[in-house]
Parts: sequence; C-alpha cells; structure tokens
Amino acid sequence: MTKSIFYHAGCPVCISAEHDIVKLIGSDNVEIIHLGDNPESIEKAEKLGVKSVPALITPQGNVLHINFGASLEEVKN
Amino acid sequence: MTKSIFYHAGCPVCISAEHDIVKLIGSDNVEIIHLGDNPESIEKAEKLGVKSVPALITPQGNVLHINFGASLEEVKN
Repeated sequence: MTKSIFYHAGCPVCISAEHDIVKLIGSDNVEIIHLGDNPESIEKAEKLGVKSVPALITPQGNVLHINFGASLEEVKN
Repeated sequence: MTKSIFYHAGCPVCISAEHDIVKLIGSDNVEIIHLGDNPESIEKAEKLGVKSVPALITPQGNVLHINFGASLEEVKN
C-alpha cells in the first residue's frame, strides 16, 4: 500500500476534512472512498480498523480517525 | 501561517499520530508542539480551536482532531 486511503460518508465534517487532507498530502497521494456511495467497501474499511468516518489510513496501515463525523454503524443504516 | 502545527501531549496515541503525520506531510511542513512541556502554549492552542490532543492545525487554520489522546483540560492538570 503506497497511497493513503481517506474514508468518508459525505457528511459536512467529512467533506471539510477531505479538503484539508488533500491540500496537506496531495490528491495524487490519497484515494478517496465515499462509503455511502460504496457500501461494499465498508467491510474492508472495518478490517483495516476504521471505527468512524472521516478516517485516514496511512501507507503504513495505521488508522487516523479525524474529528468525528459518523460511526460505521451509522453509515450502514 | 504556511506550516501546519501539530499539538500533542506526549501520550502514546499522540506519539503514534505524530510519526504518521510527519511521514505524510514531511517534517519541514509541520511544527510540533508538546503542550505538556510547553504549558504556556495551551492558551494559543485553545484560541486556534484545539479541544483535544493530538490535533493538527492546517495552514488554512482548520483544526483536525486526530484520534483521541486527552482533552486540553486534562493536559492542564
């Protein structure tokens, strides 16, 4: 894994954090995944350790939970 | 403000996040401030909108609260 992955669910907190992260690390360095539009990705996100969105997975596989938008349970509903 | 500022308080969650952030955005692009060692900086952090550490202030002045280490109230005590 060489890119970071940014998981979000389209909430205002998520969108704001997405813009900040893209500015900080560059759009070429991060894959953005909208879990509301791509519910099939929720299982992978959970396996990576994501508990809430927005969250950033680093290239090393660490999970950074940023601010607090919504728990994954809420995204599923 | 052209650099980001990363506030932390030396807790394990903070140190782990610090390493991740430095790898992601580069050590030249972020000023690291340990609020436990520099309690005089707590007031400025609060004015910038920091509620808990670790937190990253972007060059645009947005506050990204990352994971959850400690509230600023806990850092003061």
